[in-house]
Amino acid sequence: MTDISPVLDRADANLPSSLDRLFELLRIKSISTDPAYKPECRKAAEWLKAYLTSIGFTASVRDTTGHPMVVAHHDGASAGAPHLLFYGHYDVQPVDPIELWENDPFEPAVKDIGNGRKVITGRGTSDDKGQLMTFVEACRAFKDINGALPCRVTILFEGEEESGSPSLKPFLEANAGELKAEYALVCDTGMLDGKTPAISAGLRGLVGEEIVVTAADRDLHSGMYGGAAANPIHILSDILAGLHDATGKVTLPGFYHGVAETPDDVKAAWKKLDAASEAFLSDVGLSVPSGEKNRSILELTWARPTAEVNGIIGGYTGEGFKTVIASKASAKVSFRLVGQQDPAAIRESFRAYVQSKIPADCTVEFHKHGGSPAIQLPYDSALLGKAKVALSAEWPNPAVVIGMGGSIPIVGDFQKMLGMESLLVGFGLSDDRIHSPNEKYDLTSYHKGIRSWVRILDALAA
Amino acid sequence: MTDISPVLDRADANLPSSLDRLFELLRIKSISTDPAYKPECRKAAEWLKAYLTSIGFTASVRDTTGHPMVVAHHDGASAGAPHLLFYGHYDVQPVDPIELWENDPFEPAVKDIGNGRKVITGRGTSDDKGQLMTFVEACRAFKDINGALPCRVTILFEGEEESGSPSLKPFLEANAGELKAEYALVCDTGMLDGKTPAISAGLRGLVGEEIVVTAADRDLHSGMYGGAAANPIHILSDILAGLHDATGKVTLPGFYHGVAETPDDVKAAWKKLDAASEAFLSDVGLSVPSGEKNRSILELTWARPTAEVNGIIGGYTGEGFKTVIASKASAKVSFRLVGQQDPAAIRESFRAYVQSKIPADCTVEFHKHGGSPAIQLPYDSALLGKAKVALSAEWPNPAVVIGMGGSIPIVGDFQKMLGMESLLVGFGLSDDRIHSPNEKYDLTSYHKGIRSWVRILDALAA
Repeated sequence: MTDISPVLDRADANLPSSLDRLFELLRIKSISTDPAYKPECRKAAEWLKAYLTSIGFTASVRDTTGHPMVVAHHDGASAGAPHLLFYGHYDVQPVDPIELWENDPFEPAVKDIGNGRKVITGRGTSDDKGQLMTFVEACRAFKDINGALPCRVTILFEGEEESGSPSLKPFLEANAGELKAEYALVCDTGMLDGKTPAISAGLRGLVGEEIVVTAADRDLHSGMYGGAAANPIHILSDILAGLHDATGKVTLPGFYHGVAETPDDVKAAWKKLDAASEAFLSDVGLSVPSGEKNRSILELTWARPTAEVNGIIGGYTGEGFKTVIASKASAKVSFRLVGQQDPAAIRESFRAYVQSKIPADCTVEFHKHGGSPAIQLPYDSALLGKAKVALSAEWPNPAVVIGMGGSIPIVGDFQKMLGMESLLVGFGLSDDRIHSPNEKYDLTSYHKGIRSWVRILDALAA
Repeated sequence: MTDISPVLDRADANLPSSLDRLFELLRIKSISTDPAYKPECRKAAEWLKAYLTSIGFTASVRDTTGHPMVVAHHDGASAGAPHLLFYGHYDVQPVDPIELWENDPFEPAVKDIGNGRKVITGRGTSDDKGQLMTFVEACRAFKDINGALPCRVTILFEGEEESGSPSLKPFLEANAGELKAEYALVCDTGMLDGKTPAISAGLRGLVGEEIVVTAADRDLHSGMYGGAAANPIHILSDILAGLHDATGKVTLPGFYHGVAETPDDVKAAWKKLDAASEAFLSDVGLSVPSGEKNRSILELTWARPTAEVNGIIGGYTGEGFKTVIASKASAKVSFRLVGQQDPAAIRESFRAYVQSKIPADCTVEFHKHGGSPAIQLPYDSALLGKAKVALSAEWPNPAVVIGMGGSIPIVGDFQKMLGMESLLVGFGLSDDRIHSPNEKYDLTSYHKGIRSWVRILDALAA
């Protein structure tokens, strides 16, 4: 470990210009799931390549069958330091419903929200452009002061994280030699609260399915046909309502196969975090935990599997009323997986269940969206131990090791395909509204996030 | 009864020019439920006023708080003939999904669909512009030949039938003296099949409700919150799925209060119509009657109450996938009523049921859309008897008296507010796709519909 205070000071001094750079990236509408924004995704990749090149990386934009990857390399100062692969994603979620945004989602700004808090507003500020830039700006601070990085660094930015990362596995496979490092660093997660940094050790998996139920071959008048003709919204409601039983458990046969109870010592550690979890629901206007009964909020979101309907549409949804029986109705359903749950088996069980509920004269189509198992990282590795010390030095409270509700499939791929352990550190907060209107990223998350990576890079080099 | 063959001949000779006139009316986009088309609704009213004036009616457009009414008067040739009030509506349903239309919905055309059938295509051809023009063109044929009408006729056209007729009752109340006649004629119903005219004696009532369920105060990430935060789509699915039991009956407490079993003799008469009812489902690609078990299709649609979800929306419904837990989800639900079912009591029962399913930290809003009781007209009146004979003279098969699935609230208002018996005669067919893309009206319905009104007007004058 060296004296890194000059690098930290430089990160502080760079803050205003680093915000200008981040804003340039945030203005690019890189919505990966909507084909209309394909050119914007490439633009974001090109922007990152140019910036990484400007601070001394050998960077390139790599085509895939979807949106391109950005790959960049930089040597380390010392031969003994580990080679690190840093991962982030430059694509963002759609912005609808656009009318709920208080500011243009693609015109970022720093906003004072009172209580001494300043936030960066806009789509992608927290997920994941603001986060990935904390690492890049940490590298810049090192380069500015030392002309070198403490470790050898490879950077991989993808542009399809919000749409299931279809190109990622083939890309890792084809470029395994180039991308393989000692450790992977992933910055796409959150803190426990504004004062307490967190390292995520458990990640839920994901299975996404879209189902489209078709009844009559046209929309029907509900006066003329109502009571005799199948209504696809009824069929769909029945399917979705049947996914959970009265205790909140998912009813699909075999769903809990591979789900272990959380160890008592982990539950005990989470119990100490109860205060933070209370605010979790109240921050979004809720108070009653839904889902499985008799489990804590932290356990429900970190260690239990779920079935959630993410979208539904059918029939007349405009202004006023239309007494129609729709021909089609559809829903997007996702499952969060834990432990050893098998994504393929769960998809199959879901499809069989849905099919069993379809009347003989109706049909259903399935569309697959993503599929990844859960990940459990070791609680006691050297990598995690060093990062914990580095983070604890930067923030008011010591770092905690937590579970995580979301899915970051890349971590499993790094493990399986490249044999790398991942370190998941991020500075998002639960009120960041990622995937929602009015996404933000605390200015403190950004600033101390940069400083945190300075400390972690230094700690890992030692 | 007089020799009406010259009038019928004139109706035949007028057919080409009458189509030109109908097309002018069809081109006006009078979608009443969408505020964007308010000027088009007025345009349709003005067009009707102008046409009625041109054939000798004293016609006027009357403002309401919504879309205007058209009222027109014409004396009858004989003092002994009854005064008739003819009702129709010039407003039409929305046209979405527009991409499913084979022709522009507002550019009508006559299309040969094979098997010797020609149809008029476009929104409103069958519901209700084509139908109302059958009556107006019958009046024109009388005027052309006799310079007079056999009966005194008042015409009332409204422009809000497709959006719950909010202005109708106040208008009838305020203009009762002007509108009161001996009988009301309503042309907004269908035939049994292409050869068999029908008089509708039973009409189901309607209660419409829109419900909006709100959970969190923003959209949430389903990875971060899934399993702990309430999902309004789950709540809504559960509510909608619970509306029917396993036998297809509606579960709301008190729902079947006032629902009588259909008399055996009526069921027996309907049994003879079985052949027509078989095609009813197969025409739209279905084969299994949904709804209550062990009841015929005719009984289900003519004599039994229903609960139908007409529209549902929540969460992400665009292309691709978004792992969001929505803040809100909403559904439009309508109930068709029969017998003595009380619309207010059913609305109340539904709201209480929905409210009972809302978790303590979530809320629901209700929006009322329409509410009218069912109507049962006498099976054996003089009015109905004369119309039956007149219709049987025009069509290949004798006229039948049927029930009807849809709601025409005006008939109840005519009964209660103006003390008038209504005669419901219309020439729609079950494959007219009213309320759907590719609405059409058979050219034979239009042509023989005009001739039918000539015969009915003559028969009622006798």
